[in-house]
Order: sequence, then structure tokens, then C-alpha cells
Amino acid sequence: MTTSTATTTGLDARQFLQAKTDQAIEILKEKGIDVWLTYVRESIANVDPSLDLIFEGDLTWESALILTADGEKIAIVGVHDAAELEEAGIYDRILGYREGISEPLVDTINRIDPRTIAINVSENDPLADGLGAGLHHLLKRRFGSTLYADCLVSAEDVIWSLRGRKLPMEVDCIRRAVAETESILDESKDFIRPGITNADLAASIRDLAYSRGLSCAWTPKMCPIVSTGPSPRVGHVSPSKDVLGPGIVHVDFGVRVDGYCADLQRMWFVSSNGEGAPEPVAHAFRTVVDAIDRAAEALKPGVLGWEIDQIARDCIEKSGYEEFTHALGHQIGRSPHDGGGATLAPRWERYNETPYRPVEIGNVFTLEPSIVLPEHGLVSLEANVLVTDKGCEFLSKRQTTLPVLHFPK
Amino acid sequence: MTTSTATTTGLDARQFLQAKTDQAIEILKEKGIDVWLTYVRESIANVDPSLDLIFEGDLTWESALILTADGEKIAIVGVHDAAELEEAGIYDRILGYREGISEPLVDTINRIDPRTIAINVSENDPLADGLGAGLHHLLKRRFGSTLYADCLVSAEDVIWSLRGRKLPMEVDCIRRAVAETESILDESKDFIRPGITNADLAASIRDLAYSRGLSCAWTPKMCPIVSTGPSPRVGHVSPSKDVLGPGIVHVDFGVRVDGYCADLQRMWFVSSNGEGAPEPVAHAFRTVVDAIDRAAEALKPGVLGWEIDQIARDCIEKSGYEEFTHALGHQIGRSPHDGGGATLAPRWERYNETPYRPVEIGNVFTLEPSIVLPEHGLVSLEANVLVTDKGCEFLSKRQTTLPVLHFPK
Repeated sequence: MTTSTATTTGLDARQFLQAKTDQAIEILKEKGIDVWLTYVRESIANVDPSLDLIFEGDLTWESALILTADGEKIAIVGVHDAAELEEAGIYDRILGYREGISEPLVDTINRIDPRTIAINVSENDPLADGLGAGLHHLLKRRFGSTLYADCLVSAEDVIWSLRGRKLPMEVDCIRRAVAETESILDESKDFIRPGITNADLAASIRDLAYSRGLSCAWTPKMCPIVSTGPSPRVGHVSPSKDVLGPGIVHVDFGVRVDGYCADLQRMWFVSSNGEGAPEPVAHAFRTVVDAIDRAAEALKPGVLGWEIDQIARDCIEKSGYEEFTHALGHQIGRSPHDGGGATLAPRWERYNETPYRPVEIGNVFTLEPSIVLPEHGLVSLEANVLVTDKGCEFLSKRQTTLPVLHFPK
Repeated sequence: MTTSTATTTGLDARQFLQAKTDQAIEILKEKGIDVWLTYVRESIANVDPSLDLIFEGDLTWESALILTADGEKIAIVGVHDAAELEEAGIYDRILGYREGISEPLVDTINRIDPRTIAINVSENDPLADGLGAGLHHLLKRRFGSTLYADCLVSAEDVIWSLRGRKLPMEVDCIRRAVAETESILDESKDFIRPGITNADLAASIRDLAYSRGLSCAWTPKMCPIVSTGPSPRVGHVSPSKDVLGPGIVHVDFGVRVDGYCADLQRMWFVSSNGEGAPEPVAHAFRTVVDAIDRAAEALKPGVLGWEIDQIARDCIEKSGYEEFTHALGHQIGRSPHDGGGATLAPRWERYNETPYRPVEIGNVFTLEPSIVLPEHGLVSLEANVLVTDKGCEFLSKRQTTLPVLHFPK
């Protein structure tokens, strides 16, 4: 597997970390949070999913990366990690400890004397919830007899904005990932030939990405997801070894460029009787296109996630279909499901508070309504869009027609 | 970067997961724990470091992997992840939910009616602390008005044994990683030539690994770590652009085979005056070799981690050197710092309870005492050893002499 290729071709790591830590400080000022403390240990294995926005490398012992509304950037780390941080030059003050973090941590917080300390804990957002429950207890213990353990709040609000408000350099990475993914999907049509299996098609698409030095946006064995025929595998599932066609061919795929993901869906229809897609498929296809149109028209800064989901969901239901069993859209970025702030999701338990969050400028969403037709299978498309001050810009080209591929009988 | 190459050449994923989940059930029986519940969400980004011992793939929504002392293997996951679990065939009962996990989770636990539920939370071990503090709160809330939130205990004792007691198929992977690493380090000597920099040497070693289809055991930019001369970069740090030699050349390197790491250190001495290493270097070198000998002699099942650390530490201090500022040894496995159970570490705050844990059969440790000589730099070696019923078996070849490489003046 060459899944890590081409992750670092265009984005300067130092420039990126400088820009994101500066952005974080602006967000702290805006939200009136004194300190953002990211607490981690053995980060090579216990990965804080947002650490790579503010640090490149590994932190081994208990480590505190501290950004303050006053503009300070402080790292308190084990002595063996200190030299690398000095070298990187992002943090202005680096404290390396030998036996335990308590003393330098308490000294530093005493000096800053914050009212609130936002930490990497979140009920709502997995990407803002990097602090293990055990380490969370330890952190509180490290504060000992001070009152700082009482000042701890969730940093999800900081992390949502930091992940969600993509800088131009981040949008540029996503644009390139989308363009590469589209180019690969355009070529994929040629792989759809009589006798090939779902797994063959998936492998051909993946290999084409690898041959271009690109990596998969998510786990390779299910990237792409291939769903074909009347009883497709739907969801996060690896492709079957069943021979493909006739009927719907649906592909969900994305590559990663400089660490940033695209996530697109495309459809074809394989016909073995010389005709086009049957009317039920064509109707469902038009309904999905329409649902994306209407959601995109309404998507703008300030609307709540669930409101956009509802528009697409209504559109599907009013056309006589069952509602889809997932969110209309999620953010994309360094993770294929990026940020928990403003998911375009229904108000279901599993989405926690994210449907109630407002959409912000710089958010990049998927729009992916779907219909499952009992006799024909999955009808679904997925677009990637950027929220701008004017509304919604499509980063991906629209698929508005369903190409028919003719197989012999 | 081709860092993921050759990770899956010899280990059958299904066989591995079957064996480790079976082993986990035996451990539950032995320790009298009714249920081990691994609770995760969005695991592609928020990685539980021990999930890959019992599952391959991604779990998107809140998911519970449940193993019981009665031998049950149950997965409760979002409906879109269910098909992949069915396909994998490791879990006997797979419950896919649509809107929220509470109901199937409570129903399942009600049926099992356990006295204790061990969860992926640990103060002592980062690799057993995969449950985010926010998700931990959510889990307790999911149990609602039942009393199961009160039955939650740390699964660190299960995870320590599961990670630490390597199965023969796991030891085989480490043996191969060690052999590959040694072969690369043997060839590295030829790269040490007049005029090259520390960074050049590191890149040559890494490229040699890549050319063999191997990936680095840890972050490539500091794998290998290269420490040379009287003021070396020591610790977790990327190599400098300083020209190397004369003096000590020290390399800390490991590759990964089928996901398992080696972690070895080797030394050379570059001489530009036609002579060998000066006596202070030779003496320190012999002391380090001796410390490894003595630690290895004492290492056997049942001893406590700190006791072995103390032996090597005393050996160094009694020879007139300052004690080293790190642990004598850590476990290796799927992570380069594997498992928190029985670290061969001093009783310092930052090692928590791990120095007090007993060594078990099947543990694989590094032994890596070090001396820093003010005038000559880092003198350190690192061996990889397996704990057997008879004591300690070296998986790596011993370095007992310090090769001298002659540079022109």
C-alpha cells in the first residue's frame, strides 16, 4: 500500500502551523476564552485528532500545548521531546520536564491566571475529544490543590471554529483533492465492463489513484465504496465479489491531497437491453439532484445544520420516498468527517448538538441525499461545497445526468 | 513517503483478530471481569490505540465492541457499519442501530447483567485510554436510569495483558522486524563517510528501509534518530544538518513488519587520528553493555518493572555516571511504546503505576540504558528481548564492540 503518498507536496508545514495557531488565538479572543490547553501523551498511538492543527510530530510524556487569548504559545513537554519543538519554532516558550509535569504546568497556569481553561474534551465532537478519560483525571490531579481543575471547560467551540473555518491554503488543498477525485471518477467509467466484479472496480479506481501518487481519503479497503444492483451493500462497507450489472453502479470515493480529503459520489446505469435507465431510477435520480439544488440554495453563514438537512429530507419525502438514514452532509477537511460544528444532520440522538450549530464562512460540506429503491438499489450523489459570505460555492462539478453504459445481453 | 508498505504481508487479519479476541476472553475469565466494553466513535480520526487488537476497519457512530467472560462477542454499531462487521465474521452478534445506541446497548447489558464492565479508560496507560473524556460522559448517560454506569471500571488490566502477552504469531512479526532493522543497521556503516550530515545519514537509512518495502516504526522525520559528536541531539528529535564526525555516531531506528515494531540502537566511532575510541568512550560503552547484561539476567516473569530498571540504573551510577533520564525499557508491539503494563521504569510521577507491574511471559521489552559524556556525547545501546518461562531471550543480536571508522584528517 502506498497510502501516504503525496500528502505533503504543496503545503508548507511550518507556515500552516503558524497560521492555524495564530487563527486559534484570534478565535480565543473572539469567544472570550483565556486559555486553550491541549493535553496529550504518547500521541503517536493515542492520537488527538486535532493535534495536527497546532503541532507536527509526536509528544511522548504528558504534554500541554497552551495557546492564550493574549497571544502566548507555550509547550510543556517531556525533556526528550523539547529539542524538536525548539527546532520547529512554532511555540515561543518550551518547558521540558524530567520527572513530572505538575510543577511547570501549575507554575505556567498560575502566571497566566485564567478564568477558563478550554481543554480537548467534547461530548458532541469526536475530533474535539482527544483527551482520554484517564488522562483527564490525571490532568485534574496535576492541578493538585489549586482551583484550576474547576476552570476546565470543553474546547469544542474553539476546535469547531478552527477546523471549520478553513484558511485559503486549506481550501486550496481540498480543491485539489476534489479535482483529482473527479478526474479519477471520470476515468472510472472505462473500468465498468462486462464480467468485472464490484471489488474489481474498486481496485481499479484505487490503483488509478495510487498510480497518480495519491492516497485514499479513508480506509483503503472501503475506499471507494461500490454499491451496485438492486441489493447493494450500502454504508461503510468493502465491495463485494459479485459480478456487476445490469442496473445502477454507484461509487463513493475520495483522495487526500496534502492531508485534505475529498468525498464524492458518482452514478452510472448499466443497461443490457439497449434502453436507458427505467423511469423509477430516473425519477429518483432527478429527486436527488433537486434535493442537492435546494439544500445548496439555502446554505449560507448563520443557518443551522438541521435546517439544511430538513430541506433535502423534505424534498426526498415529498417525492414519495423514505427519508435517508444518515445526515445530509458532514464537513470535510483533514478528516473525511471533519469537525462536529454544524453537521447538516437531523436532530437525532447520535448527532448530539451538532445539528443546532450555525454554519460558518469557510466551512466545507458534503451534500449527499440518498434514496434506496427496493427494486433498483441505491440512488445517491455527493457534492462538496464551500460556504462563502455570499452563500454556497460548489467545489465539485455537478452530476445532473445519469450516463448509460450498454452491456451486451 | 511509502511508510505503509509491507504492513500486511504475513499476518492473516482474520486469523489474528480471531486469536486476539479469543485471548481476550481467556484474560477476562482469568481476571474475573464479566465484560470488556470498548466504546469508540469516528475511529478513523479519534483512534482508540487498542481497537486494532479486536477489530479491523472504522467505526463511525458511537459503537460498542463487547467481549464477555462467557465467550460472547457482540458489536453494537451504526447501521452503516454493520455490513462490514457481518462480512468480517469475528463478532457473533451484530446489532446495527439507526438513531441512537442507548436502546440496543442497555438491552444487551441488561441481558448479560454483569457485575463489572471494564472500559477503555486508563490513567496509567495511554494505549488503554482510548475513550475520550466527552464520550465517557456520553456512555454513562446512555446507561440512563440503569445502574450500569456504576459498574464501570478500567480495562487497563485486560488491555495490558492482551497487548503484553504476545502470541507466537505476534512474536514472529517482531522477530522479522528486528531482523530487517538489524540488516539495515549493518549496512548503515557504509553510509558513514566524510562530509555527510546527520540528516544525510538518517535519510540514507530510511531510504534503504523504503527500498525494501518496509515502513518506519515511528514518525519518519525522526526515524532514525541520529545523535553524533559531543553535543548530540538526544531524545525524540529529527537529525541535524551538521556534518558528522569525528566522534560517536549513534543511531536509534526501527522498521515495522505486519504492523509490529522493532526499536534498536547501534553505535560507531569515527576516528580522524588513526586511533580507536578514547578510553572514556570505551569505558562508558562497556558499562552500557554490562548494564544490559545484568538487566537481562534478572528479567523473568513475576519481577516488577522498576526492579529491572534499578539494576541497570545502579550499574550506570556505580560506575560513576549520572543516571539516565528515561526508563530502562518499554514494551514494543503494534506501537513502538507498547502497553503500559510493566514498564521497566523508575518510580517517577510520569510513569504512574507501570513500574510496579509484574513482568509476564510473552512481553517484549527494549533494554536501553544510556550515558551522556560531557566531552563525547551519547553512549547508548538498545536491545529487544522476549520474556519466556525460562527468563529472557534476546530477539536482537548483541552489540558488544564499538566499531571504529577511520576518516582522513
